[in-house]
Amino acid sequence: MTGTTLRGGALAAPMGRRDVRRAASRLAPHVVRTPVIRADFPDRPACVRLWLKAENLQRGGSFKIRGALHAVGRMAATGCPGVIAPSTGNHGIAVAYAARAHGLPAVLVLPADAAPSKVRGIRATGARVVLAGTAPAERAAVVAELGERYGYRTVDPYEDPDVVAGQATATAELLAQVTAAGGRLDAVVVPVGGGSALAGACLAAEGTGIAVVAAEPAAVPALGAALRAGAPVTVTPRPTIADGLRPDRIGRLPFALVRRRVTAVVEVEEDAIADTMRLALERLRLVVEPAAATALAGALRFAAGGEGRAAGMTDVGVLLSGGNVESALIASLLLSGEVHRSHRGT
Amino acid sequence: MTGTTLRGGALAAPMGRRDVRRAASRLAPHVVRTPVIRADFPDRPACVRLWLKAENLQRGGSFKIRGALHAVGRMAATGCPGVIAPSTGNHGIAVAYAARAHGLPAVLVLPADAAPSKVRGIRATGARVVLAGTAPAERAAVVAELGERYGYRTVDPYEDPDVVAGQATATAELLAQVTAAGGRLDAVVVPVGGGSALAGACLAAEGTGIAVVAAEPAAVPALGAALRAGAPVTVTPRPTIADGLRPDRIGRLPFALVRRRVTAVVEVEEDAIADTMRLALERLRLVVEPAAATALAGALRFAAGGEGRAAGMTDVGVLLSGGNVESALIASLLLSGEVHRSHRGT
Repeated sequence: MTGTTLRGGALAAPMGRRDVRRAASRLAPHVVRTPVIRADFPDRPACVRLWLKAENLQRGGSFKIRGALHAVGRMAATGCPGVIAPSTGNHGIAVAYAARAHGLPAVLVLPADAAPSKVRGIRATGARVVLAGTAPAERAAVVAELGERYGYRTVDPYEDPDVVAGQATATAELLAQVTAAGGRLDAVVVPVGGGSALAGACLAAEGTGIAVVAAEPAAVPALGAALRAGAPVTVTPRPTIADGLRPDRIGRLPFALVRRRVTAVVEVEEDAIADTMRLALERLRLVVEPAAATALAGALRFAAGGEGRAAGMTDVGVLLSGGNVESALIASLLLSGEVHRSHRGT
Repeated sequence: MTGTTLRGGALAAPMGRRDVRRAASRLAPHVVRTPVIRADFPDRPACVRLWLKAENLQRGGSFKIRGALHAVGRMAATGCPGVIAPSTGNHGIAVAYAARAHGLPAVLVLPADAAPSKVRGIRATGARVVLAGTAPAERAAVVAELGERYGYRTVDPYEDPDVVAGQATATAELLAQVTAAGGRLDAVVVPVGGGSALAGACLAAEGTGIAVVAAEPAAVPALGAALRAGAPVTVTPRPTIADGLRPDRIGRLPFALVRRRVTAVVEVEEDAIADTMRLALERLRLVVEPAAATALAGALRFAAGGEGRAAGMTDVGVLLSGGNVESALIASLLLSGEVHRSHRGT
């Protein structure tokens, strides 16, 4: 019963590594096997080796193409006339790409304040963009209405097991690439918004003994709240630059998959997200979006001061989830870094 | 007689792929096998597959660590007390890293207007930085004087066969990685300043039938002038943002190695270098320095309109030489891109 869509509040059908392997073999011809980049920051307290899965170099600029291609591919195979999806950005780009790849029309429903680069990226594929309010419920209502009107199937970013299995292939590749390079991960750190990346990481790491650590913006601590409550709860979000991690509630399917498997949750403050984006640009020469920087910042903190250090962890994987970021944001981060440096006189 | 230093105007001892293989096996434990990133720009006229050797992700931020580690390693093995080198920046960072790796003191002689990030990078290794004028001859005089005073050996960025053989390993890896991925290059495009990368590419591509294409800033067309003159000549440079490609004369050893092997020279204008840096940031999510952008711009032009198209070339490799670039330059490029876009109304 794996691979079926979760609907109407039903409990998730059990999913496991077999689903990840199947998704990986379906996806292999269509996604980039992105490189794993080694990094160490000797001037930081953390004495860890970081293994960065560079999904910012993925087709469409984020790992979300994996879940979308997997789910849309299976829908296309069953004669679906078109697809529709809600998104804060990356899932929308991913579904638009996937729909084009499978020759289906697509409608993407984005918040009214969606990043212009993401809206441009979606329109460039030929998909239609509908802007609807700012709350997830507003987008969900529009998706339901338009989906019914056109007979399009919904590609849910969090509740669709095919999406989760597709996202899981990013972590599965990371694990395989580290092994192939002669390494062994103690932990993997993954950003969490709606939860599909984290759920995928839990599936991919199942049975390996590798700790799965979630990094979420302190401004939107939806996973921490859900773990304390024992169920997904809606939190009141504060503003965050991590536009990919703005969902104010973790999905039901992801929560079911992660609640007993996630080892730790690191909450990352806004200034740490910004500093880490700048670190990635200046030291790693990589453009990463704030969600990816959240994971990297979380990994550095986890390794340096938290449970990671206590447990003697030395090798930490990080899912650099994507690189879709406004140029104006990068420019302002770099200029503020220059100001810091000139104040320090370095 | 391979591997000996060219001195006093003597003709270069013949070098070949054997030197590259030896350098590669010496360097393998010390350098990053940087990833090769596939890229296509479907909205560009060029219908080519690009294979980008991401040496911006190399240790020290540029391929120059290869030549420096190779040469300094061999010097250290013969009991040398320290090393000294002239550099416009990346070679200096590379020699400083290499000296630290081999436990030798190092002095680097840079132009007075060297990029502050490069000066910081060199000082961070513990090496000493001396700023001397802006012309290569001024740096050469200081290197000779201080080298004699301390008994340090000079790591020449262009005339040392060990440096050239080390640089060649970048192109050799690219060729091997493309083959391992099931591809076959028609051409490889390499940026040219003093010529060590290009000479290395010619060595690595020897006997493969792969065309070697040089990309140089139109502002400092030292290779084109040398090829026309049949010998290295000094050109009058105009200002260029490609600080790594400012040498106003190609080295004698590189020229001897490339003059009969280079297939074409593409001269790249300043605005194309800047546009291509922005393209790399926004579309490839990679921070590349202007020299690397010069090669990428040259590859796009060569493939689209030049000999490449005429010859039916479809697979072009590009040496993305490095990622050491001032944050302020990136910020200003991105902001000017935003202005362009808002004027176009996109």
